Amino acid sequence: MTALNAAVREIADEMASRPDRGEVADYIPELARADPGAFGIAVIGPEGIAAAGDADAPFSIQSVSKVFTLTLALGLAGDRLWNRVGREPSGNPFNSIVQLERERGVPRNPFINAGAIAVTDVILSGHQPREALGEILRFLQFIAEDETIYIDDAVAKSERRTGFRNAALANYMKSFGVLENPVDFTLGVYFHHCAIAMSCRQLAMAGRYLAHSGRNPTTGFNVVSPERARRINALMLTCGHYDGSGEFAYRVGLPGKSGVGGGILAIAPGKASIAVWSPGLDANGNSHLGRIALEMLAKRMGWSIFGADVP
Amino acid sequence: MTALNAAVREIADEMASRPDRGEVADYIPELARADPGAFGIAVIGPEGIAAAGDADAPFSIQSVSKVFTLTLALGLAGDRLWNRVGREPSGNPFNSIVQLERERGVPRNPFINAGAIAVTDVILSGHQPREALGEILRFLQFIAEDETIYIDDAVAKSERRTGFRNAALANYMKSFGVLENPVDFTLGVYFHHCAIAMSCRQLAMAGRYLAHSGRNPTTGFNVVSPERARRINALMLTCGHYDGSGEFAYRVGLPGKSGVGGGILAIAPGKASIAVWSPGLDANGNSHLGRIALEMLAKRMGWSIFGADVP
Amino acid sequence: MTALNAAVREIADEMASRPDRGEVADYIPELARADPGAFGIAVIGPEGIAAAGDADAPFSIQSVSKVFTLTLALGLAGDRLWNRVGREPSGNPFNSIVQLERERGVPRNPFINAGAIAVTDVILSGHQPREALGEILRFLQFIAEDETIYIDDAVAKSERRTGFRNAALANYMKSFGVLENPVDFTLGVYFHHCAIAMSCRQLAMAGRYLAHSGRNPTTGFNVVSPERARRINALMLTCGHYDGSGEFAYRVGLPGKSGVGGGILAIAPGKASIAVWSPGLDANGNSHLGRIALEMLAKRMGWSIFGADVP
Amino acid sequence: MTALNAAVREIADEMASRPDRGEVADYIPELARADPGAFGIAVIGPEGIAAAGDADAPFSIQSVSKVFTLTLALGLAGDRLWNRVGREPSGNPFNSIVQLERERGVPRNPFINAGAIAVTDVILSGHQPREALGEILRFLQFIAEDETIYIDDAVAKSERRTGFRNAALANYMKSFGVLENPVDFTLGVYFHHCAIAMSCRQLAMAGRYLAHSGRNPTTGFNVVSPERARRINALMLTCGHYDGSGEFAYRVGLPGKSGVGGGILAIAPGKASIAVWSPGLDANGNSHLGRIALEMLAKRMGWSIFGADVP
Repeated sequence: MTALNAAVREIADEMASRPDRGEVADYIPELARADPGAFGIAVIGPEGIAAAGDADAPFSIQSVSKVFTLTLALGLAGDRLWNRVGREPSGNPFNSIVQLERERGVPRNPFINAGAIAVTDVILSGHQPREALGEILRFLQFIAEDETIYIDDAVAKSERRTGFRNAALANYMKSFGVLENPVDFTLGVYFHHCAIAMSCRQLAMAGRYLAHSGRNPTTGFNVVSPERARRINALMLTCGHYDGSGEFAYRVGLPGKSGVGGGILAIAPGKASIAVWSPGLDANGNSHLGRIALEMLAKRMGWSIFGADVP
Repeated sequence: MTALNAAVREIADEMASRPDRGEVADYIPELARADPGAFGIAVIGPEGIAAAGDADAPFSIQSVSKVFTLTLALGLAGDRLWNRVGREPSGNPFNSIVQLERERGVPRNPFINAGAIAVTDVILSGHQPREALGEILRFLQFIAEDETIYIDDAVAKSERRTGFRNAALANYMKSFGVLENPVDFTLGVYFHHCAIAMSCRQLAMAGRYLAHSGRNPTTGFNVVSPERARRINALMLTCGHYDGSGEFAYRVGLPGKSGVGGGILAIAPGKASIAVWSPGLDANGNSHLGRIALEMLAKRMGWSIFGADVP
Repeated sequence: MTALNAAVREIADEMASRPDRGEVADYIPELARADPGAFGIAVIGPEGIAAAGDADAPFSIQSVSKVFTLTLALGLAGDRLWNRVGREPSGNPFNSIVQLERERGVPRNPFINAGAIAVTDVILSGHQPREALGEILRFLQFIAEDETIYIDDAVAKSERRTGFRNAALANYMKSFGVLENPVDFTLGVYFHHCAIAMSCRQLAMAGRYLAHSGRNPTTGFNVVSPERARRINALMLTCGHYDGSGEFAYRVGLPGKSGVGGGILAIAPGKASIAVWSPGLDANGNSHLGRIALEMLAKRMGWSIFGADVP
Repeated sequence: MTALNAAVREIADEMASRPDRGEVADYIPELARADPGAFGIAVIGPEGIAAAGDADAPFSIQSVSKVFTLTLALGLAGDRLWNRVGREPSGNPFNSIVQLERERGVPRNPFINAGAIAVTDVILSGHQPREALGEILRFLQFIAEDETIYIDDAVAKSERRTGFRNAALANYMKSFGVLENPVDFTLGVYFHHCAIAMSCRQLAMAGRYLAHSGRNPTTGFNVVSPERARRINALMLTCGHYDGSGEFAYRVGLPGKSGVGGGILAIAPGKASIAVWSPGLDANGNSHLGRIALEMLAKRMGWSIFGADVP
């Protein structure tokens, strides 16, 4: 058993028994059903995959999907995307609308809700919602090499029924011309790609290109250029955990993107693609145990991008 | 000549001839005298130092000093420091006071002005301003191994005469009990440590411990623990360039801290401590050519912390 | 000819010839067609009606309708209305969403857009939009004693097509439970009551109850209690001109409510109900010449509520 | 006994026995000593003065002084004053600094702390603090016809020691050039004029010019023009009770200015100058019983500026 396998197993064991598990999100009714006792982890490193706990249980990836829609939108629009969305941390909660008013409808970054909706609008760009959604799903199935990945319709419908805050953000951007498609189309695609269900194993598979200079390390297929992979990682580091991004960088030291379903995708550049899942969230809406598990893993493996234990 | 030497020289040559040089800061009268044509760079890597341009000309390090006062304050107060200052990007300009009102006087991070003033207050903690200032200066002379580093009194006086915005921040924090010392004492030390003058060579020397797990790579002396060095680097990455921190991470991919004097200290963990200087600033108050030079250097040397060109 | 008649005629003459006329609102396409040269005034005082200029031309009353929907909603819900909307000036533009975030979806007063949408939601309260709209229109026809008052469907449709900012406000409030009806229903009624077309004469007729302790001075019919009339007047004074309310009180000294169609209803308590109309707006979205005309009228007639020329 | 005398006595009796008395301000230590059981009222109407309760006990007038410094500054600078301070309600607490950042150091109105400090700076305008303060005090003694009015030095010193929030506001405005004098000079005068001690009787005497078209009704001396008196009343109505100004207009219907010492000066134009005092404050920092007493008085006497009970 490798050091990685041992680390992953021990972390999963410790996480299973911790009493502090955060709070399961309840603002989307369908998500509130998640089991707060669940914990999964999957790490794809140079020597293969290490997984433990509920690594094969599908969960709602929610905002983790924003990494993949950003990747797709950059492929479609290139740097023109940045006319519609910024690249700075927001200093505000994930669903804040204050910043949009101050900056005339242009969201601060592609990982807060407003920014991700703008990114979805770029992908949609004149197509039917069904087509755009199909493209997003096929992209995820392709990079994860797994055609069983699916959209959980019950979650998507649950979000649509209750997603008034996101509808406010979308209409607000629309009033400034930042969205080009009908608001309902863009929101429809957004709610559905947030409702994609994946397991930790599938998510870690999907994230490999970010750990390996934009390339599938097995097939050698280039998903994005090395520079683009670096830049997506940089955005994950500075903006991937909403108003807890500074804290995640400080404690874990890896680019990562969280979702309110309790999943986090983290990248150790050149080393590993990592997915963790535990539904209980902290005050910033990030997986409580997920963050702790990643902090332990990064420390134990010496994977922080900010320096090693030995000079 | 090493690849690093060649890179440094070519970058300095290109920077010398570029017509776009940003705007020299004029809100502190004494800083407005800087020569917009100046450019210096010094890199201390594993094979020694590479320097070019005005690498030995002293300039006002201004906010770059905040990296070193943070290091000192963490040594004095440990994690108790974080009761007085946060660890999140601010999403606001460097001298914004809005956030302080929303968060009851606790600044978002130690690198915006309010946060750095709170850090200075921790260092002062009951001592006379002269003593605290002496401690800061001696620390810099020690880690840079250069006793000629000095405080430029004309700059300090110039800031004191015009620093009403910082006085507003300090009084505001004092009203919430975030500062413990008399406001004038804390501001006096703050203005003076911002007025420290250093050359690129001295600054790169001073930053070595952040590139080498907290340790002076020559003497082996431990300045801070490896974990603390990582964490300071993480804060520099997420918060080191004010409201341009996301952009710096996106383009350069290195932890860095800028000052309105036009200096930037950047760290390539495990590889190099880098200082650049060019007085012209961009809209966010960061050195325009300094950022471009670091982007070129990081790309050419493959030093981005977010991934390499080859998987 | 009475002093009032003379004043009204001379003011209308001067307004007709002034070169500074403000800017016609263009964010609702249908409103942009208004003639910037138009000016109308109608004053119903103790000795009858004085009217001049385009006093009989119908215009889109827009936000002036909020006075009447507030009156209706208070009749339906009484003081329970104030659980859903505040009574303080906003210190922000009419369509700002910032305040909603800070105060958890409760708008500051019934005259900013968000507040008026919440008031409309109270009137709707479970009915079909068509019924609620019919009630609003009949109320206006009744108090103005004029059954020809109508809703301009072209304007309503124009607003619905472009009213993304209002849709953002409505969805935002809905997310906090401040709206009870489907967002589309509430917005539909809101857009249509803003699209009511009235002339100055009709509007001055409709406002009489506010000038006369809640009562129709001709028929003696009580529309509201004297206390409620006073309170509506107080709200008009402090909040009736968005972020120009202080200026209107300072210069005119009468309770008033403006609309982006260029109309203003002003009340001289115990003395007169006044309507002016000129489509050009000032920077705060209030009729430029309308405000000036009211300032001249109040001064000349000694109608300011803040004191007379002679002690 | 007149109806006014009876009303004043009955109101004072009721206020003396009410259990809900608000909270005495404690952020200025010296003010915290006030007796929460105190209540005073003095009304100067056409038939002379009616007073009851602690009408002759001196209290710290605090922000009520802003009415008189505004009057003085308008006399000195005329409409040029409005280059330094606005005329709109703030929509924020009395000591907020957020608005100053958004509007580049220009306070929204002369009655929030920042605005009153700017007004004080206009009065100071190059003079020594002692001279400016002398002028303010003499003005109050003159209009109140009472030379025993004095500045409570213990309160002034208490404020200076703890007034960090006001020092923040002053320094912030200074950074934008809105203040012309040394910050310490302006703040010194401000803290001292807030510390003026007056009784209800003295305060009602001082306010007579605002009730009588700018003129002392006894001597006929013109303090300000009728227009200026009206305008000051308008500012009191829209901005005189901080973020409770809308509520005060809604319930009381009179121009008024409150202070955290628990005093309120209210004006019934053409009818009466009224002062009430009770140290317990509501959540907006306005006298709890003072407001209730004024609501009762205005209702009983039919003094609301927004309309009468009988048409």
